Amino acid sequence: MKILENNKGASPVKVIPLGGLNEVGKNMTVLEYKNDIMIIDCGLSFPDDEMFGIDIVIPDFSYLIKNRDKVKGMILTHGHEDHIGAIPYLLKELNLPIYGTRLTLGLVENKLKEHGIKGKLNTIKAGQTVKIGEFKIETIRTTHSIADAICLAIDTPAGMIFHTGDFKIDYTPLDGEPIDFQKLAELGNKGVLLMLGDSTNAERKGYTASEKTVGVALENIFRGSEARILTATFSSNVHRVQRIIDTAVMFGRKVAISGRSMVNVANLAVELGYLKIPENVLVDINKTKNIPDKELVIITTGSQGEPMSALSRMASAEHKAIQIKKGDMVILSSSPVPGNEKTVSNVVNKLFEKGADVIYSDIADIHVSGHACAEELKLVHSLIKPKYFMPVHGEYRHLRQHALIAENLGMPTENIHILENGQVLHLTKDRVVKTKEEVPASPVLVDGLGVGDVGNIVLRDRKLLSESGLIIVVAAIEKSTGMICSGPDIISRGFVYVRENEDLMKSARTAVSARLDKCYADGLRDWAGLKNAVKDELKNFIYEKTKRSPVILPIFLEV
Amino acid sequence: MKILENNKGASPVKVIPLGGLNEVGKNMTVLEYKNDIMIIDCGLSFPDDEMFGIDIVIPDFSYLIKNRDKVKGMILTHGHEDHIGAIPYLLKELNLPIYGTRLTLGLVENKLKEHGIKGKLNTIKAGQTVKIGEFKIETIRTTHSIADAICLAIDTPAGMIFHTGDFKIDYTPLDGEPIDFQKLAELGNKGVLLMLGDSTNAERKGYTASEKTVGVALENIFRGSEARILTATFSSNVHRVQRIIDTAVMFGRKVAISGRSMVNVANLAVELGYLKIPENVLVDINKTKNIPDKELVIITTGSQGEPMSALSRMASAEHKAIQIKKGDMVILSSSPVPGNEKTVSNVVNKLFEKGADVIYSDIADIHVSGHACAEELKLVHSLIKPKYFMPVHGEYRHLRQHALIAENLGMPTENIHILENGQVLHLTKDRVVKTKEEVPASPVLVDGLGVGDVGNIVLRDRKLLSESGLIIVVAAIEKSTGMICSGPDIISRGFVYVRENEDLMKSARTAVSARLDKCYADGLRDWAGLKNAVKDELKNFIYEKTKRSPVILPIFLEV
Repeated sequence: MKILENNKGASPVKVIPLGGLNEVGKNMTVLEYKNDIMIIDCGLSFPDDEMFGIDIVIPDFSYLIKNRDKVKGMILTHGHEDHIGAIPYLLKELNLPIYGTRLTLGLVENKLKEHGIKGKLNTIKAGQTVKIGEFKIETIRTTHSIADAICLAIDTPAGMIFHTGDFKIDYTPLDGEPIDFQKLAELGNKGVLLMLGDSTNAERKGYTASEKTVGVALENIFRGSEARILTATFSSNVHRVQRIIDTAVMFGRKVAISGRSMVNVANLAVELGYLKIPENVLVDINKTKNIPDKELVIITTGSQGEPMSALSRMASAEHKAIQIKKGDMVILSSSPVPGNEKTVSNVVNKLFEKGADVIYSDIADIHVSGHACAEELKLVHSLIKPKYFMPVHGEYRHLRQHALIAENLGMPTENIHILENGQVLHLTKDRVVKTKEEVPASPVLVDGLGVGDVGNIVLRDRKLLSESGLIIVVAAIEKSTGMICSGPDIISRGFVYVRENEDLMKSARTAVSARLDKCYADGLRDWAGLKNAVKDELKNFIYEKTKRSPVILPIFLEV
Repeated sequence: MKILENNKGASPVKVIPLGGLNEVGKNMTVLEYKNDIMIIDCGLSFPDDEMFGIDIVIPDFSYLIKNRDKVKGMILTHGHEDHIGAIPYLLKELNLPIYGTRLTLGLVENKLKEHGIKGKLNTIKAGQTVKIGEFKIETIRTTHSIADAICLAIDTPAGMIFHTGDFKIDYTPLDGEPIDFQKLAELGNKGVLLMLGDSTNAERKGYTASEKTVGVALENIFRGSEARILTATFSSNVHRVQRIIDTAVMFGRKVAISGRSMVNVANLAVELGYLKIPENVLVDINKTKNIPDKELVIITTGSQGEPMSALSRMASAEHKAIQIKKGDMVILSSSPVPGNEKTVSNVVNKLFEKGADVIYSDIADIHVSGHACAEELKLVHSLIKPKYFMPVHGEYRHLRQHALIAENLGMPTENIHILENGQVLHLTKDRVVKTKEEVPASPVLVDGLGVGDVGNIVLRDRKLLSESGLIIVVAAIEKSTGMICSGPDIISRGFVYVRENEDLMKSARTAVSARLDKCYADGLRDWAGLKNAVKDELKNFIYEKTKRSPVILPIFLEV
C-alpha cells in the first residue's frame, strides 16, 4: 500500500545547494528527507579581487549545525579542492562519516592531517552502493581531470536523483576506465526524477578532447627536444603526471619532482597505486646538476602562476634547486583558471626573458579541460532522460547555457530549476518544485585562523585603505579644560611618500589646527563634534590638493 | 659626396622606446638624430592589480624634458588611449607640435579640453608627408579597430624606418579604405633598414577576420529578434558603431546612445564625418519608454565590465534611463582585455539574472580583434623586407613570438632586437645595433592629481593595509617623567569587526600594557625602543591568535 506516499502532505525530499551555484567553486549539496540529511561534496573557493586578505572561502554550515542530529554522512564525487577543501572546517563542527573513493579519501586525509583532525573516512569503489540514512547511493565511475571520480544515482523516497559530479566524456582515459554508459542508460530506462549536472563548460560547443591527445602532443614535443624539459600542471591531475612520466621514460629521461603539493600528491598516488613510476627514474630535485639536459624532466606545480609555487620561484630565480637557463623547454600543461590570466602571463614572460622556450595552451594543444562541453552534456541528458533538471557547478551564465541545452533537447522550461545557493527544491513523487524556503548560504570568509569574522565592514575598510591609504590625526586633550595639550600630529600610511611631500603634510596640519581653533572659539567641546570637524577639514583639504580620498582617522587621547 | 655619412664616427639615429615593450599599453617611441627628436605616440596604460589606488600609468618623460630643446614634434598613429592617453601629461611639460589624422586629433582635442590645455595640433591626411626636424615621415593608410589609423615610413639619415602602428589586414574595411599595399611594396623595393612591428596578436595563428564578418553576425541576430536590443562596444570603434546603426536602420529600429564616452566619441565622429546617422534615427536615451522593444537599439559603453560604465549600471539596476527587463537582448561586441575577464563575466551574469538574453564573444562571432595574427604579420614582413626588426607593442611573450615569425621568414637572429623600455638602438648606414645606453623609462603612476608621487613604499603600504588592515596603539607620555599618562589605547581598521571581537582587542591591550610595564621596569625610556617593543609584542600576540599580520602603528604623544 503506497497511498501515504502520494498524499499531498507527504514529507518531501529536499535538495539544498549550499555552494557551487552562481560561482565556480565551493560545491556542496544537501539532501534531506524527514530526519535524514546527506551531503554531497564540501568544497572551497578562492577569494575574488574584492575579498582583500581573504585566504579561502567556504560554504555556510549553519543549516547543518542547526540540524546536526539529522546529518548522517557525506559522499564525495572526487578529490579536487572545490569539492573537498572545506571538509576540515565542517569536521570542526560536526563529526560525520565520509564516503569516497580511494584517491579522493587519500587527498582528504592529507588535508585533515594538516589541520590535526581525524575523520571517519570510509573507502568505497566505483560501482558500490552506500546507504546514508534513508538515501541509497549507487556510485558510478566517471571521467574527469582527476582519477577515481564518480557520479551518483541516489534512490530517495521521492524518486531517483542523478548527480553528474564534475565530468567529461573521455572514451580513452589513461586508466582505461571510461564512464559506465550502460549504467547511465539503465538509470534512464528506470526513470530519473531529477538530474543535477555540471555546467562549467556548458558555453563551449562540441567536445572536450581526450586526455590522450595531450599525451600525443607531449610526445611530439619530447621527440624533437634535446633541452632540459620542465612541465607544470595541476598536482591532482594524476593521469597527466603519469603521462609526463611515461613520456620521459619513453625518451630515456629521468624525472625530478618539485613543489610541495606535487610531491605530496605524487607520494600519495604512488602509495595508492594510481601513479606508476619505474625504478631508477625518479631523481632528487636537489641532485639534478649532473644529469645532462636531454636526460631530465622536471615536473612541478605553478601552472596557474601562483606567486609562491615552484615554477614562479624558478621564473623569478628564487628556487633553491633549479635555475632556468637559456634553452630550457618549459611546458605549461594547463589553461589559466578565469581570473588567473595575468599571473600566468607574468610567469610566461619571465620564463621567456630567461631564455626558455615556453609552450602554453595558447600556442599548442598541451592541455584539455576536465569538463564536458555542450555535445557531451547532450549525450548525458539523453542517456539519463531526467524529468526535471537543475544545472549546478558554474556561474549564472553557465547554468543558463546548460538550461538552454536541456530546453533544446525538449525539456519543458518549467521542469528546469536554476537555483541560488540556499534555495530549496522539494521533490515529491513525480514532481519537483522550487519553494520559497531558504537556508543561510552566504560565503564564509576564512582569513588566517578566523572563520567568518571578516565581514563587509572589514572588507570595505581594507578596500578603502588599499585605494588611498590613511591619515591619522592624533591629539591629547586635557581632561580638566577640554583643550588640546599636545598635537594635532599627522601620520600617514600608503598615502604619499612623506619625505617628498613634507609641505603638503605641514599644510594639512596647519589646516587641521586652524579648524580646531575655530571649533574651540565657537565653544565646541564634545569629542564627536571635534573629530567630525577634523575629518571634514582634512578630507576637503586633501581632496582639493590631491584629488584623493584616504581614510581619515582622528584619535583623541584624554590626559 | 656621401663620404661623411659612411664615417664610423657619424652620429647615429637613435630609436628609444619609452613604453609599449613588455607591456600592453603606454606605447611611445622616440627617434633622435643629432639635435632633433621626434616622438611616435604617447599612450597610457591601466594599473595592474598590485598598483593599488592608481588611476593610470604613463611613460617617464624625463629624457624628453632633459632634451626639451631637441624635441621637434610628435606624430600619432591612431586615437586609442594606449597611443594618445598620456599626451596631456606631456604637454604640461613640453609644448610641442602634434601631427595626426582628423579623427585621431579630434580625440586628442577632447582629451586636452578635459585637462584645460591647448595643443598645437596639425591635421594630416593619410598619404601626406610630414617633416619633423631631420625626419621626413610618409604616412600610409592602415586598418585597425579605429578609423583613420596610419603607419609610418620615416626617412632618416641612417635609412628608412617603418613603423606599422597598430594594425590588422582588413581587405574589406567598412570605410572601403584598405591598407595601401602598393606603397608597402614600394618601400620594400626601395629598402627598409628597420621595421617596428605590432606584436599584440603574434601568438595567434592564421588571420584576424574582417570587420565585415561582425556586420553579418549582427544582421543575423537582428533579423531573428523582436526584443529590445542593447549593444556594448568600445566607443572608439567608430566602424563597429556605424555597423550597429546601419543594421538598426535596416530593421527599422531607432537608436539611442548611452555612456559618456560613447556619446562624446559619437558626436565627434558625426561632426568629422566618420559616423553617418540618417535623420530621425537617433532618439534621446531618456525618451525610449514609448518606443516598442522591436523598434529600438541602445548603443552603450561597458563592454569591458567597467564598474561605472553605462552597461554595468544597467546590469546593477543603477542606470537612470534604462532598466534591463526579461527578454532584452544584450550583445557584448568585444572580447575581454586580458585582466578584465572577471569583471566582464560579472556583468554577463547579472544581465542573465535579470532575464536578458546575452550574446558575447564566447558564444557568437560578434567581435573581431584589431590586431594582425601570425599570417598577416608574415605578409607585412614579406612586403616590407626590412633588414632589421624590432617587435613592439606587447608583453615579452608577444615580442618573442613576433621575433620567431621574423626568424622563420629567414631574418638572421642577430638582426632582430627585442628591447626593454628605455634601451637604445643605434642606426647607422646599413647597420642597427643595440647599445648599452639607457634612458629612464620606468612606469610613472598617476593617482588623482599626483603624477609620480606614489612609489614603491606607498604601494607596499597600501598592499599591506589591504591584506589585514591595521592596528594603532596610541599613548600619551609625560615629558617630565617619560612615563605613560594615558593609554595605551588600541584602534583598528580593516582587521576584525571590533564589536564581535571585543575580547581579542581587550587581551591585545592587556598584552601591550604588560609589555610596556616590563620595559619601564627594565629602565627603557627611549621612544624608538618602546615603540619597537609594542610592535613586537602586538605582532606576535595577533599572529598567534589569528594567524594574521596587520600593519601595526604605535603612536606616542608627548604631553
